[in-house]
Amino acid sequence: MKSKLICLLLLSFAVVFTFFASAWADDPLPSWSEGNPKKAIMEFVKDVTTDGRSTFVPAPKRIAVFDNDGTLWVEKPMYVQIVFALDRVKTLTPKHPEWKTKQPFKAALEGDIKGVLAGGKRALLELMMATHANNTTEEFSQIVTDWLANAKHPKTNRHYTEMIYQPMLELLDYLRANGFKTYITSGGGIEFIRPWAESVYGIPPEQVIGSSIKTKFEIRNGKPVLVRLPEINFIDDKAGKPVAINQHIGRRPIAAFGNSDGDLQMLQWTAAGDGKRLMVLVHHTDAQREWAYDRQSHIGRLDKALDEAQAKGWVVMDMKKDWKVIYPFDVK
Amino acid sequence: MKSKLICLLLLSFAVVFTFFASAWADDPLPSWSEGNPKKAIMEFVKDVTTDGRSTFVPAPKRIAVFDNDGTLWVEKPMYVQIVFALDRVKTLTPKHPEWKTKQPFKAALEGDIKGVLAGGKRALLELMMATHANNTTEEFSQIVTDWLANAKHPKTNRHYTEMIYQPMLELLDYLRANGFKTYITSGGGIEFIRPWAESVYGIPPEQVIGSSIKTKFEIRNGKPVLVRLPEINFIDDKAGKPVAINQHIGRRPIAAFGNSDGDLQMLQWTAAGDGKRLMVLVHHTDAQREWAYDRQSHIGRLDKALDEAQAKGWVVMDMKKDWKVIYPFDVK
Repeated sequence: MKSKLICLLLLSFAVVFTFFASAWADDPLPSWSEGNPKKAIMEFVKDVTTDGRSTFVPAPKRIAVFDNDGTLWVEKPMYVQIVFALDRVKTLTPKHPEWKTKQPFKAALEGDIKGVLAGGKRALLELMMATHANNTTEEFSQIVTDWLANAKHPKTNRHYTEMIYQPMLELLDYLRANGFKTYITSGGGIEFIRPWAESVYGIPPEQVIGSSIKTKFEIRNGKPVLVRLPEINFIDDKAGKPVAINQHIGRRPIAAFGNSDGDLQMLQWTAAGDGKRLMVLVHHTDAQREWAYDRQSHIGRLDKALDEAQAKGWVVMDMKKDWKVIYPFDVK
Repeated sequence: MKSKLICLLLLSFAVVFTFFASAWADDPLPSWSEGNPKKAIMEFVKDVTTDGRSTFVPAPKRIAVFDNDGTLWVEKPMYVQIVFALDRVKTLTPKHPEWKTKQPFKAALEGDIKGVLAGGKRALLELMMATHANNTTEEFSQIVTDWLANAKHPKTNRHYTEMIYQPMLELLDYLRANGFKTYITSGGGIEFIRPWAESVYGIPPEQVIGSSIKTKFEIRNGKPVLVRLPEINFIDDKAGKPVAINQHIGRRPIAAFGNSDGDLQMLQWTAAGDGKRLMVLVHHTDAQREWAYDRQSHIGRLDKALDEAQAKGWVVMDMKKDWKVIYPFDVK
């Protein structure tokens, strides 16, 4: 009698599970319009996950890498981390009265972005170091968390962590459900992304790769800390992305998602491996719901990578055409 | 009738699974003698995995880090990677006739280790760069694989990948079965360990952290490659270990295993986190079955870390007393 009950229970579980699994399998990407990008993604996933096919890839080798700015979340009108740096200048100015008259800090305090950029890379670097370093890794993580809890996007008045792309969230889930390990490979700071990537994207800290400054191990009042130094460690952009992917993962991805020329080498590196590969560019074509930009944009320029995608037959995802919704708060 | 059959099948699976699971649960560490280290490890695992206990740690935060040389595999009479470098000098000499008269290469060719070491760190560095760089990441991986397939340990005439510690293999399995993610954090080369860590330890490339040289992305004959440059990128030893752990994992480990002063800061960093922690030192005390060395040894010196372990009550594992067998080939 008892075994019959257990049996019934097991069978009901099986029935319920099968129902939900097949309902979800009907459309794992509901925010994607029917079109080539969605079709290409789903065919790729089927090809590498169907045992017996020549294109099958064992689960541990199913590595997918995603750029962050402009691929997973918004990068207009300005990289979120730059907004953070400018806000940090304001916060830190009481301790640095000299900033009121010293560039690029003066321009930053006046909200004069052009003035900041007029100083070139050196000025931007100085700004980033002054606002990101000289704290411990734990302190910085808290600073980022606190800032994101308060800062709002100038256009939508939404939190930046709401300005993420709903179709990409579905894609991340879909890939993980198919045994993929999903990584971020960002030109942005690794320690700027880690504090929230797990709750927002489902990507744990150990799967976040990004630019970094050097850190130093120290014992402070008997307690070990990692101090963030005002010195560049690594820039995870362009030719740096394959280098960082190899350093962190040690395997070549089989799928890569980007949106700008900064992602070109990552896509090339992914494409050059054996077997089935998926390379996707998010093309920002939607001036109404998001932004429209590519070859001429200072932020997220997509020029050489667009040419190469067209020449090589990589997937170019047209935001206006291929995404039914942009942000999670758009979902009914 | 069919559902009854399925039910019977499911039930038999359950019975068989329960039998094996409980047999294994009886002793997941059969090569460990009953004693304090085994007891401390198993109590720790129970504390962090038992839901409801104040010491419970959710699975994603169960990070365990392992030094490699002297902790997971043998490091005597010499670090395996140094043996590899000396062999590489011989292999590469036809292309470098000048090495026959130039130090430290001359000493290396003559098998004169003292002569090599007489040149200090600079000579060793020169030797490492000349033998490890100027190839692609894929070429180097193949070189390491080929070398390990042929090289034999001078004392046992076994392959180096057989000179691993059976009790540590059981420990890795036991931790993983309890939801831990196991990492290597080695002073040795990240690209020297990755090609074999998965098949030998069950540790995938993305969970191997180590020292590295710089690499550069290049397109060669239309194919992207990562070229290994003769330039140090990072030394993953001493105060470098917490830095690398933070860079790669972005979470603080809750358990750390080492055997030398090179692991002290990693153990301190692990110990300084909140909640339950496990810090273990492998103490090489078995001159008969392995080697006995600590405070005076040039390789794997255990001095300051031994003092701190004793002062802080970390687990010191006595190889002679606490391990029933050393190598997998000792297992009956």
